[in-house]
Amino acid sequence: MIVYAVGIGPGDPEHMTPQAKHMIADSDVVVGYTMYLNLIPDLLRGKTIVGTGMKGELARCEAALAEARSGKKVAVISSGDAGIYGMASLLFELAENDPQIIVEVVPGITAATAAASLMGAPLSNDFVVISLSDQLTPWATIEKRLEAAGLGDFVLCLYNPRSKARKDYLNRACHILLKHKPLQTWCGYVRNALRGNRAYGICMLRDLPDVEIDMLTTVIIGNADTRRIGNHLVTSRGYLIATQEVEEAR
Amino acid sequence: MIVYAVGIGPGDPEHMTPQAKHMIADSDVVVGYTMYLNLIPDLLRGKTIVGTGMKGELARCEAALAEARSGKKVAVISSGDAGIYGMASLLFELAENDPQIIVEVVPGITAATAAASLMGAPLSNDFVVISLSDQLTPWATIEKRLEAAGLGDFVLCLYNPRSKARKDYLNRACHILLKHKPLQTWCGYVRNALRGNRAYGICMLRDLPDVEIDMLTTVIIGNADTRRIGNHLVTSRGYLIATQEVEEAR
Repeated sequence: MIVYAVGIGPGDPEHMTPQAKHMIADSDVVVGYTMYLNLIPDLLRGKTIVGTGMKGELARCEAALAEARSGKKVAVISSGDAGIYGMASLLFELAENDPQIIVEVVPGITAATAAASLMGAPLSNDFVVISLSDQLTPWATIEKRLEAAGLGDFVLCLYNPRSKARKDYLNRACHILLKHKPLQTWCGYVRNALRGNRAYGICMLRDLPDVEIDMLTTVIIGNADTRRIGNHLVTSRGYLIATQEVEEAR
Repeated sequence: MIVYAVGIGPGDPEHMTPQAKHMIADSDVVVGYTMYLNLIPDLLRGKTIVGTGMKGELARCEAALAEARSGKKVAVISSGDAGIYGMASLLFELAENDPQIIVEVVPGITAATAAASLMGAPLSNDFVVISLSDQLTPWATIEKRLEAAGLGDFVLCLYNPRSKARKDYLNRACHILLKHKPLQTWCGYVRNALRGNRAYGICMLRDLPDVEIDMLTTVIIGNADTRRIGNHLVTSRGYLIATQEVEEAR
């Protein structure tokens, strides 16, 4: 009995892998958060659909496992990559003591790379991914990670940067990062990356707290090697500096 | 004049996005490292091919821009994601002073998520990506980032963990991480993720230096929430703990 944990990517079929489509097509039952099921209507025809609202993660995964135990082939979909803040880990945990169930993860384009591709190439060197949601991770842990990200001069990609219940979290994160990064650090934000009605912008770290940013926005904060080229953010990998050094040494 | 920086994913066509295929199909010229061009022979028929060996990044991107200036449509391919240790950033830098050239990035499944999907779900919470190659980044910077990753209790994904010229870099990285992480920290490694003849294994951090690992291997090092479930590595997001707390409070 197999449960597929499928990453459908940002939502646009142009960015969904063939394997993700094939695994959904091969399933009798498709389980997911209603908003993400609505992104792939063509793939759901003739399937049993189990949709739940926000915060229904546990119920969703338990329902998926129950369907699998009854002999159905099941796909549990996540937006982006199923293994990055997605449902894959919870499925493994819930199936831990059930040797009949095999969980297989199908990767997808995650929001970090989708957002980065629209901004230019901000993630071209070492980076960290941090979610600012403290529903499952204590805020003290998130603060510790923001501090560490600042110390290491990483480029940061922030998921869940702000919600109605957590209006000031992004501001708090900026406050911590400004201990380590200059006010002029380049940042980018994308809402609904690679879907319709997307919003995209570039600003400096000092202005990031004042930008209109919500839960569906992905924020990328540059490092010392990140600069603005036209409307793009680019983190240099150092090829041109390395070349220059060789030329100067001649 | 457009140059597409295309991420072809790990190499298997099942994990290449439709957009990546379409942008290559739409191009007259395809430019890339020979090893990656060899992964997509079906997509190259009838195209002009510009292939270079390792360390030919600068020559490759300059050739691509020259082809674009001559009026050709050009795709520069990278394995994985074009924006993560790929060619996108260098293309933006080289085209900076040429307003005729537009660089467009097409994201792909990066090695971090491809490797993670085979291991289980090790990247399900905050993580860092670090390359251990010091060809462009000074080793002192890499060490600083490894320290920071340890301090923040991040899951780590390591690219370029070891090469013939850098036999001891992975060992040095483990030495730094062991200041912050226990010997029993779970790790996974995948060579040629999602391609043929792949090798995959799980071990503890204390044993990682002794594992046969090369430049094409991706290594993931867990954090305090990462455990082994069967043959998989799973980093808990905390759903089950959160549920338990609610039940205990009743």
